[in-house]
Amino acid sequence: MDSVEKQQIFDHAKEWTLEAGERIKAQLDKPFKVNTKKDRKDLVTEVDEDTERFFAERIRSTYPNHQVLGEEGLGDNVTSLDGIVWIIDPIDGTMNFVHQQRHFAISVGLYKDGEGIFGLIYNVMTDDLYVAKRGEGAHKNGVLLPKLDQSRKLEDSLLALNHYWSIPNRRFDEKGIHELVRKVRGTRTFGSAALEFAFVAEGIIDGYMTMRLAPWDIAAGIILVNEVGGVTSRVDGSPLNMLKENSVITCNSAIQEEIVNNYIRKK
Amino acid sequence: MDSVEKQQIFDHAKEWTLEAGERIKAQLDKPFKVNTKKDRKDLVTEVDEDTERFFAERIRSTYPNHQVLGEEGLGDNVTSLDGIVWIIDPIDGTMNFVHQQRHFAISVGLYKDGEGIFGLIYNVMTDDLYVAKRGEGAHKNGVLLPKLDQSRKLEDSLLALNHYWSIPNRRFDEKGIHELVRKVRGTRTFGSAALEFAFVAEGIIDGYMTMRLAPWDIAAGIILVNEVGGVTSRVDGSPLNMLKENSVITCNSAIQEEIVNNYIRKK
Repeated sequence: MDSVEKQQIFDHAKEWTLEAGERIKAQLDKPFKVNTKKDRKDLVTEVDEDTERFFAERIRSTYPNHQVLGEEGLGDNVTSLDGIVWIIDPIDGTMNFVHQQRHFAISVGLYKDGEGIFGLIYNVMTDDLYVAKRGEGAHKNGVLLPKLDQSRKLEDSLLALNHYWSIPNRRFDEKGIHELVRKVRGTRTFGSAALEFAFVAEGIIDGYMTMRLAPWDIAAGIILVNEVGGVTSRVDGSPLNMLKENSVITCNSAIQEEIVNNYIRKK
Repeated sequence: MDSVEKQQIFDHAKEWTLEAGERIKAQLDKPFKVNTKKDRKDLVTEVDEDTERFFAERIRSTYPNHQVLGEEGLGDNVTSLDGIVWIIDPIDGTMNFVHQQRHFAISVGLYKDGEGIFGLIYNVMTDDLYVAKRGEGAHKNGVLLPKLDQSRKLEDSLLALNHYWSIPNRRFDEKGIHELVRKVRGTRTFGSAALEFAFVAEGIIDGYMTMRLAPWDIAAGIILVNEVGGVTSRVDGSPLNMLKENSVITCNSAIQEEIVNNYIRKK
């Protein structure tokens, strides 16, 4: 992919993302159906599906050789990251979308042979667009985001994590998390992985950790955080598999090792 | 206090709140000093103090008979709620203010003989102004907020609470909270009590609970939540004391008893 082609695809991705945002806002004014997926806390709406279909159709008609991996399964049955793959979450933070009509985002990541090329995270209701191209930095609304502060200490950090980390669970020892909660300056829970990645990239939180996420939750965010000098891995520090669900920690690299080594303990 | 006088005081409160917001935004562009108060997690900045001083001076020169109870202690030494008392948090969510330059609010409550007359919560960076006058409903940006949905079930609720609730602590049994986290649809942590009250009033979260808050954190929020049919109390269901710190639960009254009776257990 040469730089002209990359720019062309990026321009399309940006145009479609903003258009999808307008469609979502228009649909918020009318009633829409809410269903549950794998359990009663896993919500999906007509708007998620409509938005993913919108992307899939645009991509297929413009780039018939590209694959689409999306949360709602309206893209392709992607079994390999060879070639160009769009990894899309049409509405990241569907529970916030349903309950709050805000605090959700569109997440679009473009991967080539498994490598992140660019990512976009669009906070629809605040109209904040975060973009990053590999090797070219990350921007919020056209303004370059500075590199993350490498002097950040864990005790001065704000961490995003949900409450499942701190209650008994079968994956990780909650006692390590209790120590972590006491150690850091503060904890937050926003309910949108894509926005939490964007906030890490922006430096307004210093890390975000989650027990299980799908590739579409993180595809754009990884590129964004990477471009400001942050790091994303499984919570044991090992690399992510972009065709599977992963535990995920994304954060300022100044605090990543300390969290992984001292506070996250597998059961 | 007749309705003309009440309206006049309210108009001043609104004017000063918006003006204070402008001052805060202007000060965000320059470096400001951050200090700690009772512990390393309890932050205060020059901007908090400047904002409280701004309110105290305006109130004293306009209403010399009113008292001012403020977080930074630049008001009066208020020992009784007799007469008219302004209860002010110049920046609620100072940690967010320092780390995020957003997700904080100005909170202003007016009390007469201990009774809430009106409250304003101003999300400075989104320019969202929540106001409520006792008996006259609550408004966000001039639009009347509907009453909270009395058919809301706990398992469909979003609750805001920080992570200290779910780790061992000397006040409440964390095991009850673990059950609560599993029971509800989702949990959130925003880091600004005033905004969390505003979100409850708006119905975008269904409840917010916290182990210890000062009167200025809640003075405006209580009035707001009240006006949409919500309820605020200590977490054992008993009434709040507006001259002291309290544990606080504010929520949709459809779920309050169930949380208080079944999930919050004193140690």
